[in-house]
Amino acid sequence: MQTKPKLTLIKVGGKIVEEESSLNRLLNDFSAIKGYKALVHGGGRSATKIAAQLGIESRMVDGRRITDAETLKVVTMVYGGLVNKNIVAGLQARGINALGLTGADMDVIRSVKRPVEGVDYGFVGDVSKVNVSFPAELIRRNIVLVMAPLTHDGKGNMLNTNADTIAGETAKALSAFFDVTLIYCFEKKGVLRNENDDDSVIPQMTRADFERYVAEGIIQGGMIPKLQNSFDAIEAGVSEVVITLASAINGKEGTHIVLLK
Amino acid sequence: MQTKPKLTLIKVGGKIVEEESSLNRLLNDFSAIKGYKALVHGGGRSATKIAAQLGIESRMVDGRRITDAETLKVVTMVYGGLVNKNIVAGLQARGINALGLTGADMDVIRSVKRPVEGVDYGFVGDVSKVNVSFPAELIRRNIVLVMAPLTHDGKGNMLNTNADTIAGETAKALSAFFDVTLIYCFEKKGVLRNENDDDSVIPQMTRADFERYVAEGIIQGGMIPKLQNSFDAIEAGVSEVVITLASAINGKEGTHIVLLK
Repeated sequence: MQTKPKLTLIKVGGKIVEEESSLNRLLNDFSAIKGYKALVHGGGRSATKIAAQLGIESRMVDGRRITDAETLKVVTMVYGGLVNKNIVAGLQARGINALGLTGADMDVIRSVKRPVEGVDYGFVGDVSKVNVSFPAELIRRNIVLVMAPLTHDGKGNMLNTNADTIAGETAKALSAFFDVTLIYCFEKKGVLRNENDDDSVIPQMTRADFERYVAEGIIQGGMIPKLQNSFDAIEAGVSEVVITLASAINGKEGTHIVLLK
Repeated sequence: MQTKPKLTLIKVGGKIVEEESSLNRLLNDFSAIKGYKALVHGGGRSATKIAAQLGIESRMVDGRRITDAETLKVVTMVYGGLVNKNIVAGLQARGINALGLTGADMDVIRSVKRPVEGVDYGFVGDVSKVNVSFPAELIRRNIVLVMAPLTHDGKGNMLNTNADTIAGETAKALSAFFDVTLIYCFEKKGVLRNENDDDSVIPQMTRADFERYVAEGIIQGGMIPKLQNSFDAIEAGVSEVVITLASAINGKEGTHIVLLK
Protein backbone atom coordinates (compact mmCIF):
# COMPACT_ATOMS: atom_id res chain seq x y z
CA MET A 1 0.00 0.00 0.00
CA GLN A 2 1.24 3.44 -0.93
CA THR A 3 1.88 5.76 2.00
CA LYS A 4 -0.54 8.67 2.07
CA PRO A 5 0.99 12.14 2.34
CA LYS A 6 0.54 13.94 5.64
CA LEU A 7 -2.10 16.67 5.98
CA THR A 8 -2.67 18.88 9.02
CA LEU A 9 -6.21 20.23 9.37
CA ILE A 10 -6.51 23.03 11.91
CA LYS A 11 -9.82 24.21 13.31
CA VAL A 12 -9.76 27.58 15.02
CA GLY A 13 -12.58 29.18 16.93
CA GLY A 14 -14.05 32.60 16.64
CA LYS A 15 -12.11 34.45 19.32
CA ILE A 16 -8.73 33.60 17.78
CA VAL A 17 -9.57 34.61 14.22
CA GLU A 18 -11.48 37.73 15.22
CA GLU A 19 -8.76 39.58 17.11
CA GLU A 20 -5.98 40.95 14.98
CA SER A 21 -3.08 40.04 17.27
CA SER A 22 -4.18 36.46 17.90
CA LEU A 23 -5.06 36.03 14.22
CA ASN A 24 -1.61 37.23 13.16
CA ARG A 25 0.06 34.83 15.55
CA LEU A 26 -2.13 31.98 14.35
CA LEU A 27 -1.42 32.74 10.69
CA ASN A 28 2.32 32.81 11.39
CA ASP A 29 2.16 29.47 13.22
CA PHE A 30 -0.10 27.97 10.56
CA SER A 31 2.22 29.14 7.78
CA ALA A 32 5.14 27.40 9.53
CA ILE A 33 3.43 23.98 9.49
CA LYS A 34 5.32 21.71 7.12
CA GLY A 35 3.51 19.70 4.46
CA TYR A 36 -0.07 19.88 3.28
CA LYS A 37 -2.48 21.80 5.46
CA ALA A 38 -5.98 23.26 5.59
CA LEU A 39 -7.89 25.52 7.97
CA VAL A 40 -11.48 25.54 9.22
CA HIS A 41 -12.59 28.67 11.04
CA GLY A 42 -15.49 29.86 13.14
CA GLY A 43 -16.67 33.42 13.51
CA GLY A 44 -19.50 33.37 16.02
CA ARG A 45 -18.41 36.40 18.00
CA SER A 46 -18.23 38.59 14.90
CA ALA A 47 -21.61 37.27 13.76
CA THR A 48 -23.14 38.14 17.12
CA LYS A 49 -21.60 41.61 17.00
CA ILE A 50 -22.69 42.41 13.43
CA ALA A 51 -26.13 40.94 14.11
CA ALA A 52 -26.49 43.22 17.15
CA GLN A 53 -25.44 46.24 15.06
CA LEU A 54 -28.15 45.26 12.56
CA GLY A 55 -30.71 44.99 15.37
CA ILE A 56 -30.89 41.19 15.14
CA GLU A 57 -30.89 39.38 18.45
CA SER A 58 -28.62 36.30 18.68
CA ARG A 59 -30.30 33.35 20.36
CA MET A 60 -28.26 30.30 21.33
CA VAL A 61 -29.44 26.88 22.53
CA ASP A 62 -26.74 24.56 23.94
CA GLY A 63 -24.10 26.77 22.32
CA ARG A 64 -25.74 26.49 18.89
CA ARG A 65 -27.07 29.55 17.11
CA ILE A 66 -30.77 29.73 16.23
CA THR A 67 -30.53 30.78 12.59
CA ASP A 68 -33.59 32.57 11.25
CA ALA A 69 -33.59 34.05 7.72
CA GLU A 70 -31.98 37.33 8.80
CA THR A 71 -29.37 35.54 10.91
CA LEU A 72 -28.54 33.29 7.95
CA LYS A 73 -27.72 36.42 5.94
CA VAL A 74 -25.48 37.63 8.75
CA VAL A 75 -23.54 34.37 9.09
CA THR A 76 -23.21 34.05 5.30
CA MET A 77 -21.73 37.56 5.20
CA VAL A 78 -19.54 37.24 8.26
CA TYR A 79 -18.25 33.66 7.94
CA GLY A 80 -18.14 33.45 4.13
CA GLY A 81 -17.04 37.03 3.53
CA LEU A 82 -15.47 39.00 6.36
CA VAL A 83 -13.70 36.32 8.40
CA ASN A 84 -12.86 33.99 5.51
CA LYS A 85 -11.40 36.63 3.19
CA ASN A 86 -9.46 38.28 6.00
CA ILE A 87 -7.75 34.91 6.66
CA VAL A 88 -7.22 34.21 2.95
CA ALA A 89 -5.61 37.63 2.38
CA GLY A 90 -3.48 37.16 5.52
CA LEU A 91 -2.22 33.79 4.28
CA GLN A 92 -1.51 35.15 0.79
CA ALA A 93 0.62 37.85 2.45
CA ARG A 94 2.62 35.00 4.03
CA GLY A 95 3.18 33.26 0.70
CA ILE A 96 0.49 30.62 1.32
CA ASN A 97 -1.76 30.08 -1.70
CA ALA A 98 -5.07 30.07 0.16
CA LEU A 99 -8.51 29.46 -1.29
CA GLY A 100 -11.59 30.28 0.78
CA LEU A 101 -14.50 27.88 0.56
CA THR A 102 -17.98 27.37 1.91
CA GLY A 103 -19.68 24.02 1.51
CA ALA A 104 -21.47 25.40 -1.57
CA ASP A 105 -18.23 26.10 -3.42
CA MET A 106 -17.40 23.13 -5.64
CA ASP A 107 -20.28 21.38 -3.83
CA VAL A 108 -17.82 20.39 -1.09
CA ILE A 109 -20.32 19.97 1.75
CA ARG A 110 -24.03 19.38 1.39
CA SER A 111 -26.35 19.33 4.32
CA VAL A 112 -29.99 18.94 5.21
CA LYS A 113 -31.90 21.51 7.21
CA ARG A 114 -32.11 20.19 10.74
CA PRO A 115 -35.59 18.81 11.48
CA VAL A 116 -37.49 20.51 14.27
CA GLU A 117 -37.35 18.28 17.35
CA GLY A 118 -38.23 20.43 20.31
CA VAL A 119 -35.90 23.24 19.25
CA ASP A 120 -36.28 24.90 15.83
CA TYR A 121 -32.72 25.80 14.95
CA GLY A 122 -33.87 27.40 11.69
CA PHE A 123 -31.42 27.44 8.78
CA VAL A 124 -28.93 25.06 10.36
CA GLY A 125 -27.60 22.23 8.23
CA ASP A 126 -26.58 18.72 9.31
CA VAL A 127 -23.86 17.45 6.99
CA SER A 128 -25.16 14.87 4.49
CA LYS A 129 -22.36 14.57 1.92
CA VAL A 130 -18.72 15.64 1.70
CA ASN A 131 -17.09 15.69 -1.75
CA VAL A 132 -13.37 16.14 -1.32
CA SER A 133 -11.86 14.30 -4.27
CA PHE A 134 -11.35 17.51 -6.24
CA PRO A 135 -10.35 19.56 -3.17
CA ALA A 136 -7.80 16.80 -2.43
CA GLU A 137 -6.30 17.48 -5.87
CA LEU A 138 -6.12 21.19 -5.08
CA ILE A 139 -4.35 20.41 -1.81
CA ARG A 140 -1.80 18.31 -3.69
CA ARG A 141 -1.28 21.35 -5.93
CA ASN A 142 -0.29 23.29 -2.79
CA ILE A 143 -3.51 25.20 -2.48
CA VAL A 144 -4.45 25.72 1.16
CA LEU A 145 -8.20 25.46 1.72
CA VAL A 146 -9.75 27.87 4.22
CA MET A 147 -13.22 26.65 5.10
CA ALA A 148 -16.04 28.70 6.54
CA PRO A 149 -18.72 26.99 8.68
CA LEU A 150 -21.40 27.17 6.00
CA THR A 151 -22.92 24.42 3.87
CA HIS A 152 -25.65 24.26 1.23
CA ASP A 153 -28.70 22.08 0.68
CA GLY A 154 -28.33 21.58 -3.08
CA LYS A 155 -31.58 23.51 -3.59
CA GLY A 156 -30.03 26.96 -3.61
CA ASN A 157 -29.95 27.63 0.13
CA MET A 158 -26.93 28.20 2.31
CA LEU A 159 -27.12 26.65 5.78
CA ASN A 160 -25.25 27.40 8.99
CA THR A 161 -23.17 24.45 10.19
CA ASN A 162 -21.02 24.11 13.30
CA ALA A 163 -17.31 24.64 12.55
CA ASP A 164 -16.18 21.68 14.70
CA THR A 165 -18.49 19.45 12.68
CA ILE A 166 -17.16 20.86 9.37
CA ALA A 167 -13.62 20.14 10.58
CA GLY A 168 -14.45 16.61 11.71
CA GLU A 169 -16.38 15.68 8.56
CA THR A 170 -13.75 17.19 6.27
CA ALA A 171 -10.95 15.40 8.14
CA LYS A 172 -12.82 12.10 7.80
CA ALA A 173 -13.38 12.57 4.07
CA LEU A 174 -9.78 13.71 3.46
CA SER A 175 -8.44 10.65 5.29
CA ALA A 176 -9.18 8.68 2.10
CA PHE A 177 -6.41 10.72 0.45
CA PHE A 178 -4.12 11.85 3.27
CA ASP A 179 -2.69 10.81 6.61
CA VAL A 180 -4.74 13.45 8.47
CA THR A 181 -3.95 15.11 11.77
CA LEU A 182 -6.96 17.13 12.99
CA ILE A 183 -6.17 19.81 15.56
CA TYR A 184 -8.99 21.59 17.37
CA CYS A 185 -7.65 24.86 18.75
CA PHE A 186 -9.38 26.77 21.49
CA GLU A 187 -8.67 28.94 24.52
CA LYS A 188 -7.60 26.13 26.87
CA LYS A 189 -4.51 23.95 26.92
CA GLY A 190 -6.64 20.88 26.28
CA VAL A 191 -9.54 19.03 27.86
CA LEU A 192 -9.32 19.85 31.55
CA ARG A 193 -9.90 17.48 34.44
CA ASN A 194 -10.75 20.53 36.57
CA GLU A 195 -12.17 23.52 34.73
CA ASN A 196 -10.71 25.91 37.31
CA ASP A 197 -7.18 24.55 36.83
CA ASP A 198 -5.78 25.42 33.40
CA ASP A 199 -2.95 22.96 33.90
CA SER A 200 -5.15 19.93 34.60
CA VAL A 201 -4.99 18.82 30.96
CA ILE A 202 -5.98 15.23 30.26
CA PRO A 203 -3.09 14.23 27.97
CA GLN A 204 -4.74 11.27 26.28
CA MET A 205 -8.28 9.98 26.03
CA THR A 206 -10.05 6.92 24.62
CA ARG A 207 -13.80 6.80 24.01
CA ALA A 208 -14.14 4.70 27.17
CA ASP A 209 -12.32 7.42 29.13
CA PHE A 210 -14.56 10.05 27.53
CA GLU A 211 -17.73 8.19 28.47
CA ARG A 212 -16.53 7.78 32.01
CA TYR A 213 -15.60 11.47 32.29
CA VAL A 214 -19.05 12.47 31.00
CA ALA A 215 -20.76 10.08 33.43
CA GLU A 216 -18.69 11.56 36.26
CA GLY A 217 -19.54 15.13 35.21
CA ILE A 218 -15.87 15.97 34.59
CA ILE A 219 -16.59 16.71 30.93
CA GLN A 220 -19.72 18.72 30.18
CA GLY A 221 -21.31 21.40 27.97
CA GLY A 222 -19.76 22.38 24.63
CA MET A 223 -16.83 20.02 25.17
CA ILE A 224 -19.10 17.00 24.69
CA PRO A 225 -19.96 17.57 20.98
CA LYS A 226 -16.33 18.60 20.29
CA LEU A 227 -15.10 15.29 21.72
CA GLN A 228 -17.87 13.40 19.97
CA ASN A 229 -16.65 14.87 16.66
CA SER A 230 -13.09 13.92 17.62
CA PHE A 231 -13.93 10.28 18.35
CA ASP A 232 -16.07 10.02 15.21
CA ALA A 233 -13.09 11.32 13.22
CA ILE A 234 -10.50 9.00 14.70
CA GLU A 235 -12.79 5.99 14.37
CA ALA A 236 -13.40 6.88 10.70
CA GLY A 237 -9.74 6.85 9.71
CA VAL A 238 -8.28 10.20 10.82
CA SER A 239 -4.77 9.40 12.09
CA GLU A 240 -4.57 11.81 14.99
CA VAL A 241 -6.92 14.24 16.75
CA VAL A 242 -5.62 16.82 19.22
CA ILE A 243 -7.50 19.41 21.29
CA THR A 244 -5.15 22.19 22.25
CA LEU A 245 -4.34 25.86 22.63
CA ALA A 246 -4.28 27.98 19.46
CA SER A 247 -0.69 28.90 20.33
CA ALA A 248 0.25 25.20 20.26
CA ILE A 249 -0.92 24.12 16.83
CA ASN A 250 2.08 21.88 16.32
CA GLY A 251 -0.10 19.40 18.21
CA LYS A 252 2.61 18.33 20.64
CA GLU A 253 0.64 19.42 23.73
CA GLY A 254 -3.06 19.32 24.53
CA THR A 255 -5.37 16.34 24.75
CA HIS A 256 -4.70 13.54 22.27
CA ILE A 257 -7.69 11.48 21.24
CA VAL A 258 -6.76 7.85 20.78
CA LEU A 259 -8.47 4.81 19.32
CA LEU A 260 -9.51 2.10 21.74
CA LYS A 261 -6.79 -0.51 21.59
CA MET B 1 -2.18 26.93 -34.18
CA GLN B 2 -4.58 25.06 -31.93
CA THR B 3 -8.05 26.53 -31.68
CA LYS B 4 -8.79 27.83 -28.19
CA PRO B 5 -12.02 26.61 -26.57
CA LYS B 6 -14.81 29.14 -26.24
CA LEU B 7 -15.47 30.81 -22.88
CA THR B 8 -18.34 33.18 -22.08
CA LEU B 9 -17.66 35.62 -19.25
CA ILE B 10 -20.78 37.37 -17.98
CA LYS B 11 -20.67 40.47 -15.81
CA VAL B 12 -23.89 41.29 -13.98
CA GLY B 13 -24.59 44.36 -11.95
CA GLY B 14 -25.97 44.72 -8.50
CA LYS B 15 -29.65 45.21 -9.24
CA ILE B 16 -29.93 41.93 -11.15
CA VAL B 17 -28.20 39.73 -8.58
CA GLU B 18 -29.88 41.37 -5.61
CA GLU B 19 -33.52 40.74 -6.47
CA GLU B 20 -34.64 37.16 -6.17
CA SER B 21 -36.75 37.03 -9.33
CA SER B 22 -34.17 38.65 -11.61
CA LEU B 23 -31.40 36.57 -10.05
CA ASN B 24 -33.33 33.36 -10.67
CA ARG B 25 -33.92 34.31 -14.27
CA LEU B 26 -30.26 35.21 -14.72
CA LEU B 27 -29.08 31.94 -13.15
CA ASN B 28 -31.40 29.97 -15.44
CA ASP B 29 -30.13 31.82 -18.52
CA PHE B 30 -26.52 31.54 -17.37
CA SER B 31 -26.91 27.80 -16.74
CA ALA B 32 -28.19 27.37 -20.29
CA ILE B 33 -25.05 28.86 -21.88
CA LYS B 34 -23.17 26.15 -23.72
CA GLY B 35 -19.46 25.61 -23.18
CA TYR B 36 -17.13 27.09 -20.61
CA LYS B 37 -18.40 30.08 -18.67
CA ALA B 38 -17.68 32.32 -15.71
CA LEU B 39 -19.54 35.07 -13.87
CA VAL B 40 -18.45 38.37 -12.33
CA HIS B 41 -20.97 40.08 -10.08
CA GLY B 42 -21.49 43.42 -8.40
CA GLY B 43 -23.45 44.06 -5.26
CA GLY B 44 -23.40 47.79 -4.67
CA ARG B 45 -27.04 48.16 -3.79
CA SER B 46 -26.86 45.49 -1.08
CA ALA B 47 -23.66 47.04 0.24
CA THR B 48 -25.35 50.44 0.46
CA LYS B 49 -28.35 48.92 2.22
CA ILE B 50 -26.35 46.91 4.77
CA ALA B 51 -24.02 49.88 5.35
CA ALA B 52 -27.05 52.08 6.07
CA GLN B 53 -28.40 49.48 8.52
CA LEU B 54 -25.01 49.55 10.25
CA GLY B 55 -25.11 53.35 10.38
CA ILE B 56 -22.38 53.76 7.77
CA GLU B 57 -23.02 56.41 5.17
CA SER B 58 -22.26 55.44 1.55
CA ARG B 59 -20.42 58.13 -0.35
CA MET B 60 -19.95 57.86 -4.10
CA VAL B 61 -17.75 59.94 -6.43
CA ASP B 62 -18.36 59.45 -10.18
CA GLY B 63 -20.24 56.24 -9.40
CA ARG B 64 -17.33 54.83 -7.37
CA ARG B 65 -17.69 54.05 -3.69
CA ILE B 66 -15.47 55.83 -1.17
CA THR B 67 -14.25 52.86 0.86
CA ASP B 68 -13.16 53.69 4.40
CA ALA B 69 -12.16 50.91 6.83
CA GLU B 70 -15.74 50.25 7.94
CA THR B 71 -17.04 50.29 4.37
CA LEU B 72 -14.32 47.81 3.37
CA LYS B 73 -15.67 45.40 5.99
CA VAL B 74 -19.17 45.86 4.58
CA VAL B 75 -18.18 45.21 0.95
CA THR B 76 -16.02 42.23 1.98
CA MET B 77 -19.03 40.77 3.79
CA VAL B 78 -21.62 41.62 1.19
CA TYR B 79 -19.72 40.94 -2.06
CA GLY B 80 -17.52 38.07 -0.84
CA GLY B 81 -20.10 36.49 1.43
CA LEU B 82 -23.77 37.30 0.94
CA VAL B 83 -24.02 37.96 -2.81
CA ASN B 84 -21.28 35.54 -3.91
CA LYS B 85 -22.47 32.54 -1.88
CA ASN B 86 -26.10 33.15 -2.81
CA ILE B 87 -25.10 32.90 -6.49
CA VAL B 88 -22.83 29.89 -5.90
CA ALA B 89 -25.59 28.00 -4.05
CA GLY B 90 -28.10 28.98 -6.77
CA LEU B 91 -25.82 27.62 -9.49
CA GLN B 92 -25.13 24.40 -7.56
CA ALA B 93 -28.90 23.91 -7.38
CA ARG B 94 -28.90 24.09 -11.19
CA GLY B 95 -26.19 21.46 -11.54
CA ILE B 96 -23.43 24.00 -12.22
CA ASN B 97 -20.27 23.32 -10.21
CA ALA B 98 -19.63 26.90 -9.10
CA LEU B 99 -16.67 28.18 -7.10
CA GLY B 100 -16.84 31.65 -5.57
CA LEU B 101 -13.66 33.71 -5.65
CA THR B 102 -12.33 37.06 -4.61
CA GLY B 103 -9.01 38.29 -5.97
CA ALA B 104 -7.33 37.04 -2.78
CA ASP B 105 -8.39 33.44 -3.39
CA MET B 106 -5.59 31.59 -5.18
CA ASP B 107 -4.01 35.06 -5.57
CA VAL B 108 -6.11 35.56 -8.70
CA ILE B 109 -6.17 39.37 -8.71
CA ARG B 110 -3.69 41.63 -6.95
CA SER B 111 -4.15 45.34 -6.80
CA VAL B 112 -2.56 48.47 -5.40
CA LYS B 113 -4.42 50.89 -3.19
CA ARG B 114 -5.41 53.80 -5.38
CA PRO B 115 -3.16 56.81 -4.76
CA VAL B 116 -4.90 59.94 -3.52
CA GLU B 117 -5.20 62.38 -6.41
CA GLY B 118 -7.83 64.90 -5.47
CA VAL B 119 -10.29 62.23 -4.28
CA ASP B 120 -9.28 59.78 -1.53
CA TYR B 121 -11.18 56.64 -2.51
CA GLY B 122 -9.84 54.82 0.56
CA PHE B 123 -9.46 51.05 0.34
CA VAL B 124 -10.01 50.83 -3.41
CA GLY B 125 -7.61 48.72 -5.44
CA ASP B 126 -6.40 49.25 -8.99
CA VAL B 127 -5.62 45.89 -10.59
CA SER B 128 -1.88 45.20 -10.83
CA LYS B 129 -1.65 41.49 -11.63
CA VAL B 130 -4.06 38.80 -12.79
CA ASN B 131 -3.00 35.15 -12.34
CA VAL B 132 -5.40 32.95 -14.26
CA SER B 133 -3.30 29.98 -15.33
CA PHE B 134 -4.59 27.81 -12.48
CA PRO B 135 -8.16 29.18 -12.69
CA ALA B 136 -8.03 28.37 -16.43
CA GLU B 137 -7.32 24.75 -15.47
CA LEU B 138 -10.30 24.77 -13.11
CA ILE B 139 -12.49 26.10 -15.92
CA ARG B 140 -11.35 23.26 -18.17
CA ARG B 141 -12.37 20.90 -15.37
CA ASN B 142 -15.89 22.37 -15.68
CA ILE B 143 -15.72 24.49 -12.57
CA VAL B 144 -17.61 27.74 -13.05
CA LEU B 145 -15.86 30.66 -11.37
CA VAL B 146 -18.08 33.26 -9.68
CA MET B 147 -16.01 36.35 -9.00
CA ALA B 148 -16.76 39.05 -6.44
CA PRO B 149 -15.47 42.60 -7.03
CA LEU B 150 -12.75 42.37 -4.39
CA THR B 151 -8.98 42.13 -4.78
CA HIS B 152 -6.03 42.00 -2.37
CA ASP B 153 -2.76 43.87 -2.07
CA GLY B 154 -0.52 40.91 -1.23
CA LYS B 155 0.11 42.45 2.20
CA GLY B 156 -2.95 41.00 3.90
CA ASN B 157 -5.50 43.64 2.93
CA MET B 158 -8.61 43.19 0.86
CA LEU B 159 -9.43 46.06 -1.50
CA ASN B 160 -12.64 47.11 -3.20
CA THR B 161 -12.40 46.97 -7.01
CA ASN B 162 -14.97 47.87 -9.63
CA ALA B 163 -16.76 44.81 -11.01
CA ASP B 164 -16.58 46.00 -14.64
CA THR B 165 -12.81 46.29 -14.24
CA ILE B 166 -12.57 42.81 -12.69
CA ALA B 167 -14.54 41.44 -15.65
CA GLY B 168 -12.42 43.26 -18.23
CA GLU B 169 -9.08 42.31 -16.65
CA THR B 170 -10.12 38.70 -16.14
CA ALA B 171 -11.40 38.44 -19.72
CA LYS B 172 -8.09 39.81 -21.00
CA ALA B 173 -6.03 37.35 -18.93
CA LEU B 174 -8.25 34.39 -19.85
CA SER B 175 -7.93 35.22 -23.55
CA ALA B 176 -4.47 33.58 -23.40
CA PHE B 177 -6.28 30.27 -22.80
CA PHE B 178 -9.75 30.72 -24.31
CA ASP B 179 -11.65 32.37 -27.12
CA VAL B 180 -13.41 34.79 -24.75
CA THR B 181 -16.74 36.52 -25.21
CA LEU B 182 -17.25 39.16 -22.52
CA ILE B 183 -20.84 40.22 -21.93
CA TYR B 184 -21.62 43.22 -19.74
CA CYS B 185 -25.23 42.96 -18.59
CA PHE B 186 -27.14 45.91 -17.26
CA GLU B 187 -30.63 47.43 -17.18
CA LYS B 188 -30.61 48.77 -20.75
CA LYS B 189 -30.76 47.02 -24.11
CA GLY B 190 -27.31 48.32 -24.95
CA VAL B 191 -25.49 51.62 -25.30
CA LEU B 192 -28.22 54.11 -26.21
CA ARG B 193 -27.98 56.92 -28.74
CA ASN B 194 -30.75 58.68 -26.82
CA GLU B 195 -31.01 57.91 -23.12
CA ASN B 196 -34.76 58.56 -23.16
CA ASP B 197 -35.36 56.02 -25.93
CA ASP B 198 -34.71 52.46 -24.76
CA ASP B 199 -34.78 51.25 -28.34
CA SER B 200 -32.05 53.58 -29.62
CA VAL B 201 -29.37 50.93 -29.15
CA ILE B 202 -26.10 51.49 -31.01
CA PRO B 203 -25.63 48.00 -32.49
CA GLN B 204 -21.91 48.20 -33.13
CA MET B 205 -19.13 50.51 -32.01
CA THR B 206 -15.44 51.01 -32.78
CA ARG B 207 -13.13 53.05 -30.58
CA ALA B 208 -13.35 55.87 -33.11
CA ASP B 209 -17.16 55.80 -32.85
CA PHE B 210 -16.86 55.78 -29.05
CA GLU B 211 -14.58 58.79 -29.00
CA ARG B 212 -16.88 60.67 -31.33
CA TYR B 213 -19.95 59.81 -29.21
CA VAL B 214 -18.16 61.02 -26.08
CA ALA B 215 -17.08 64.26 -27.81
CA GLU B 216 -20.69 64.79 -28.93
CA GLY B 217 -22.02 64.12 -25.39
CA ILE B 218 -24.08 61.14 -26.60
CA ILE B 219 -22.15 58.84 -24.25
CA GLN B 220 -21.50 60.10 -20.74
CA GLY B 221 -21.23 59.22 -17.05
CA GLY B 222 -20.80 55.62 -15.92
CA MET B 223 -21.00 54.36 -19.50
CA ILE B 224 -17.59 55.86 -20.29
CA PRO B 225 -15.47 53.62 -17.98
CA LYS B 226 -17.59 50.59 -18.99
CA LEU B 227 -16.81 51.22 -22.65
CA GLN B 228 -13.19 52.00 -21.84
CA ASN B 229 -12.94 48.55 -20.18
CA SER B 230 -14.63 47.04 -23.24
CA PHE B 231 -12.20 48.56 -25.74
CA ASP B 232 -9.20 47.69 -23.55
CA ALA B 233 -10.44 44.10 -23.48
CA ILE B 234 -11.05 43.76 -27.20
CA GLU B 235 -7.72 45.38 -28.04
CA ALA B 236 -5.96 42.96 -25.66
CA GLY B 237 -7.25 39.81 -27.34
CA VAL B 238 -10.79 39.27 -26.07
CA SER B 239 -12.73 37.97 -29.09
CA GLU B 240 -16.03 39.69 -28.53
CA VAL B 241 -17.44 42.27 -26.10
CA VAL B 242 -21.19 42.92 -25.86
CA ILE B 243 -23.11 45.38 -23.68
CA THR B 244 -26.67 44.20 -23.29
CA LEU B 245 -29.72 43.50 -21.16
CA ALA B 246 -29.38 40.87 -18.44
CA SER B 247 -32.28 39.03 -20.08
CA ALA B 248 -30.27 38.80 -23.32
CA ILE B 249 -27.05 37.15 -22.17
CA ASN B 250 -26.80 35.05 -25.29
CA GLY B 251 -25.12 38.19 -26.63
CA LYS B 252 -27.13 38.33 -29.85
CA GLU B 253 -28.57 41.77 -29.12
CA GLY B 254 -27.08 44.82 -27.43
CA THR B 255 -24.08 46.89 -28.43
CA HIS B 256 -21.18 44.95 -29.96
CA ILE B 257 -17.73 46.40 -29.41
CA VAL B 258 -15.56 45.89 -32.47
CA LEU B 259 -11.86 46.29 -33.19
CA LEU B 260 -10.91 49.08 -35.56
CA LYS B 261 -10.47 47.49 -38.97
